[in-house]
Amino acid sequence: MRLNDTIVALATPPGAGAISVIRVSGPEAINIVAPIFKAKSNKEITEQPTHTLHLGNIADNERLIDEVLVSIFHGPRSYTGENTTEISCHGSPYIQQEIIQLLIRKGCRSAEAGEFTLRAFLNGKMDLSQAEAVADLISSENAASHQMAMQQMRGGFSNEIQKLRQELLNFASLIELELDFAEEDVEFANRDEFKGLVSRIQQVLKKLIDSFAVGNVLKNGIPVAIVGEPNVGKSTLLNALLNEERAIVSDIAGTTRDTIEDEMSIGGVGFRFIDTAGIRETKDVIEGLGIKKTFEKISQSQVVVFLVDSSKLKAERSRLHEIHVELEKIKNQFPLKPLIIVVNKIDRLSEQDIDALKSSLDDIDGATLQLLSAKSGEGVEDLKDKLLQFVNTGELRNNNTIVTNSRHYNALLSALEEINKVQEGLNHGLSGDLMAIDIRQALYHFGEITGEITNDDLLGNIFANFCIGK
Amino acid sequence: MRLNDTIVALATPPGAGAISVIRVSGPEAINIVAPIFKAKSNKEITEQPTHTLHLGNIADNERLIDEVLVSIFHGPRSYTGENTTEISCHGSPYIQQEIIQLLIRKGCRSAEAGEFTLRAFLNGKMDLSQAEAVADLISSENAASHQMAMQQMRGGFSNEIQKLRQELLNFASLIELELDFAEEDVEFANRDEFKGLVSRIQQVLKKLIDSFAVGNVLKNGIPVAIVGEPNVGKSTLLNALLNEERAIVSDIAGTTRDTIEDEMSIGGVGFRFIDTAGIRETKDVIEGLGIKKTFEKISQSQVVVFLVDSSKLKAERSRLHEIHVELEKIKNQFPLKPLIIVVNKIDRLSEQDIDALKSSLDDIDGATLQLLSAKSGEGVEDLKDKLLQFVNTGELRNNNTIVTNSRHYNALLSALEEINKVQEGLNHGLSGDLMAIDIRQALYHFGEITGEITNDDLLGNIFANFCIGK
Repeated sequence: MRLNDTIVALATPPGAGAISVIRVSGPEAINIVAPIFKAKSNKEITEQPTHTLHLGNIADNERLIDEVLVSIFHGPRSYTGENTTEISCHGSPYIQQEIIQLLIRKGCRSAEAGEFTLRAFLNGKMDLSQAEAVADLISSENAASHQMAMQQMRGGFSNEIQKLRQELLNFASLIELELDFAEEDVEFANRDEFKGLVSRIQQVLKKLIDSFAVGNVLKNGIPVAIVGEPNVGKSTLLNALLNEERAIVSDIAGTTRDTIEDEMSIGGVGFRFIDTAGIRETKDVIEGLGIKKTFEKISQSQVVVFLVDSSKLKAERSRLHEIHVELEKIKNQFPLKPLIIVVNKIDRLSEQDIDALKSSLDDIDGATLQLLSAKSGEGVEDLKDKLLQFVNTGELRNNNTIVTNSRHYNALLSALEEINKVQEGLNHGLSGDLMAIDIRQALYHFGEITGEITNDDLLGNIFANFCIGK
Repeated sequence: MRLNDTIVALATPPGAGAISVIRVSGPEAINIVAPIFKAKSNKEITEQPTHTLHLGNIADNERLIDEVLVSIFHGPRSYTGENTTEISCHGSPYIQQEIIQLLIRKGCRSAEAGEFTLRAFLNGKMDLSQAEAVADLISSENAASHQMAMQQMRGGFSNEIQKLRQELLNFASLIELELDFAEEDVEFANRDEFKGLVSRIQQVLKKLIDSFAVGNVLKNGIPVAIVGEPNVGKSTLLNALLNEERAIVSDIAGTTRDTIEDEMSIGGVGFRFIDTAGIRETKDVIEGLGIKKTFEKISQSQVVVFLVDSSKLKAERSRLHEIHVELEKIKNQFPLKPLIIVVNKIDRLSEQDIDALKSSLDDIDGATLQLLSAKSGEGVEDLKDKLLQFVNTGELRNNNTIVTNSRHYNALLSALEEINKVQEGLNHGLSGDLMAIDIRQALYHFGEITGEITNDDLLGNIFANFCIGK
């Protein structure tokens, strides 16, 4: 990775728009732009102060390319910590390319994915977990994932990790100092204080490790399996939830050919509704495969919504028994999975129908019944509350730290493993030299998170997932 | 149209990217952003000078939305001429929406399409034809359309029109003054000088009107009909042209179900290659329809490329005669349409084959033969030169003004009509009061182009074609 050259990339999304921004960063960022930019003020941008904006023309010799606005940032007061210019041009893909190609001819290099943020990290503008949060922030699609990314970008748990790492480092130094005076049998590191620190570290690590399960679900959206045959009213249900929220629904073709996922945000939390074919009893081989798939999808989801067709319920009394059998099957297979039984079009059911339904479901353990009318909106709010209930958003609301990154998760697990060894060593009076090895290992894993310990492969992997221009 | 409020819109293309820019313009642009923006410097943006950049956080009360960079522009030194702020945030669609929604809650209105440029026009930052060029500039896809839009945005022919309009206005005033002194029979307006001006105006108008045909073709890409049966090697030909240019090819489903158009830029000029089914003689009804369609497409194109399959030429001697018949048909139907006969895979033809081919095409009047090898690249450059030859890019290269906008074209036609009437009046010694009416009409049409004379409907039509945020 070269870091002494000047890089360029389109920073705004590709395509046509009102304006586009081209980012240039590196020692020559201002010097390379200066000769191709003629400011309206006639003053060279090399003479302009940092954090100022300049209107003028970008031209390749005589050929005028665009009227643009140039922002000047003197390093280290920039995103990357280097000299930076941002060229705000008319948002035509042709113009974007013309300006970028011109800058490359004048000595810029086309930036790699994430290279601006990589430079920000390497120049000490942010630590590694903060840099990773930038990518999460850009891909955040709802309030929950946005808040988690924002928290991480503002330091989040890496501040906490860094503080603990420093304390641990102090003890490590003292213990290593003891080794130098091994023959005198002194103890510079107070063992009781050290035990206290180790136990504090264990608590923090366990809390962070536990938060990963919640974080991961919140980040990717909570999977909800909708069990019900075709035409049972799945889209009516989703639209009812959606109308309330006025959120964006996108149809995403799933991994399997016949799976359609609907994503929406409810109460600021992302949900992924996974359509299943239902589990109605059948002798048909193909439908039998359908049931197998439904069970697979249920196993991958956090919550099951079992949709009942109220019109069939009214028409065929036997259907009530069938539903009961189906629900018992799900309960047997997934005893701990939250299960919501939703009956739509309750306006068409008599009191009697509803009572029969309620009593027949009495013995389905742990399942909740939700009657609703998508038409009038009755019950829709309650269903949303029930869905949110299964999400532990308490941690999120209390501004607690949540780990969402699997790299951090793995480093935390490794750190905890080493800390547990240190604790064991302390309890068994292990010699300082052996204990020092375990401490160094724990310190290593802490450093991995914040980027104090890193290597090119790791950085390459992290920043390759960024978009170009960030 | 309200113009005293403050508007907001996303200015960068929609979607995720490294950064996105949200534009706020209007009297309260800075005052609305100030309370939701906490600068790192702790200084209020209301106290900051124009054309400066400020790092800080956008928050909705306690809820932090993003770390952003805010640009400040004090009117009239801004794009719109009004106070403007541009918020450069992380390029997540979620964050974009959160910030825009927050600004709307704080008193901004969501901007209509083109409303920023409309305000720039209404505030005298640009004339109407310049404002229209902004939209053309954003949609420009090759060097030719880009240069035309750029020229128009920098004043282009509206400067010329405005100068002539002023001169004409002076004469109109003098002639109207004469009317006040009608009884004294004085001539304030020198008739000879006036005739000179009228004839100059006629020349300019005719030149501009003539340029429209060229301009329109250059703006939309030059249509080239490729005549040849399936498998004759159309895609090989297009790829050969393309590899040389390394341009972007896009497959666009045409207006008719079976037409595929390939667009590419050759020598900075856009070309649209329109696939046709060929015109081989047939008794088949359906193929007969195909021939009819081919002729339709030829009539809509500027240049015809007739593609010959060299392998068939070698295999069947009779094919040479058939080709001759087909070419004659095209020539009979479209005697003036430039025709290029392209024979690919010449490396597989013997000298003898080529000589036979050449002599058989001798009497196809005005057609040019282009032998090429897509494999070796031989002849590809020549073909490109031949295609460009049919484009009158001389005007473009000489930096002459080209009219591309049909609204301008119509106004110019109307103005010329009125000027012709004025000339006739002058020649026949028409009375001043009657002549004044024609002059006023001509002035009206000039004013339509530059926007000195306008109405809400017209403005609505023009700016509705803009993208939001511009």
